[in-house]
Amino acid sequence: MTVFLVGAGPGDPGLITVRGLELVRSCDVLVHDRLVAPELVDEAPVDALRIGREPLSQDEINRLLVWYGRRDEVVVRLKGGDPFVFGRGGEEALALAEAGVPFEVVPGVSSLSAVPAAAGIPVTHRGLASQATLVAGHDPDALDYGALARASGTIVIFMGLAHAGEIARRLLRHGADPGLPAALVSAGTTGVQQTATGTLAELDRLAGELEPPALIVLGDVVRLSATLAAEAAMIAGR
Amino acid sequence: MTVFLVGAGPGDPGLITVRGLELVRSCDVLVHDRLVAPELVDEAPVDALRIGREPLSQDEINRLLVWYGRRDEVVVRLKGGDPFVFGRGGEEALALAEAGVPFEVVPGVSSLSAVPAAAGIPVTHRGLASQATLVAGHDPDALDYGALARASGTIVIFMGLAHAGEIARRLLRHGADPGLPAALVSAGTTGVQQTATGTLAELDRLAGELEPPALIVLGDVVRLSATLAAEAAMIAGR
Repeated sequence: MTVFLVGAGPGDPGLITVRGLELVRSCDVLVHDRLVAPELVDEAPVDALRIGREPLSQDEINRLLVWYGRRDEVVVRLKGGDPFVFGRGGEEALALAEAGVPFEVVPGVSSLSAVPAAAGIPVTHRGLASQATLVAGHDPDALDYGALARASGTIVIFMGLAHAGEIARRLLRHGADPGLPAALVSAGTTGVQQTATGTLAELDRLAGELEPPALIVLGDVVRLSATLAAEAAMIAGR
Repeated sequence: MTVFLVGAGPGDPGLITVRGLELVRSCDVLVHDRLVAPELVDEAPVDALRIGREPLSQDEINRLLVWYGRRDEVVVRLKGGDPFVFGRGGEEALALAEAGVPFEVVPGVSSLSAVPAAAGIPVTHRGLASQATLVAGHDPDALDYGALARASGTIVIFMGLAHAGEIARRLLRHGADPGLPAALVSAGTTGVQQTATGTLAELDRLAGELEPPALIVLGDVVRLSATLAAEAAMIAGR
């Protein structure tokens, strides 16, 4: 049978795709991330095997998917956001391809745009940003600060909350504007979403107000949140 | 009532979100883009008013949404991909906010990752790309070629097919590697998807083989398509 690498979306369970939900509802084995909405895990058939991936390394996950994929079962690998945007779905797909196990990628709504949107921030906007750069912030030494400081448009940093202060300091040392509008959005699109807005120079302090998971957005588009974020719980840059 | 700015996803009608489909099925007025799957337009109630947006300018669309939004009706503005990734959803949201009309953004699966995924290309992949840059290619004079030629990771160009040759030439003049792996994916995720892969130096010729809409992907992740694209109709770099 087939292993389906399915994006669960950014948090709100209603933001999974129609095809993704159909697959969850018909699977024999569900291997899911911790950050996937529990409502979606509950959609699997009562007799489906549910496996939380957290205690497992990426290699172990890959082997698990290959092992179940070789049996006559429908395997759904449910991942937060989109499998191919900082989701390590490529590694799982490669492991399956190399083992000769059929697989299919079912994309999901990435946090990239959905989480800023939930805080009233369009990632691109005519006249403000015609370009966006996505980076992962979990290893601050891996970023090219010179290029990021000069990048036009919006910068979206995944998994950067713990290192927000260091990332901001290194961007500033490379010439980024201290007044660059900045937003942090925690648990975006869920009922406990929190947003903090201010400037790049204030990023360290703003990060201290929020819990992970959080997305960092830098750029002029952040200014639109004042007008567009009707519902979001705003912790304005105090 | 509320105006819902809904992302229809990248093409495959199964890739709309559960929430987005619910809204389409319960709307009074559906304003949709040409590129939205006809199967999704058909999901609107039989007595819903359907308005194709193509003959209208962006200003006219904005006024239309405000006008219907002020009536006691559920309005769904169904847009290809995600409303806030090169979707001009921000302009529509601003027009509604300024008119005092309640609105909600329902994000969609962007072509950004879904279309490369359908061709076996993960936008990010450990060891190959920890960063991605999104740009729009419909106005080649608006791009910062120096920065793009030096950008690390993957570059994804929306709406760039018509200017693919010029974009490639200007990237090469700014020092980009002529051997940089390149892919073009036309009608990604649909039944008529076509993929052309080769190098940046071959981009102009590859573009001539495809029809719009198409996405351009530049970067080492394109190499993975040889292994991961089991199903895609490949027009290999001949």
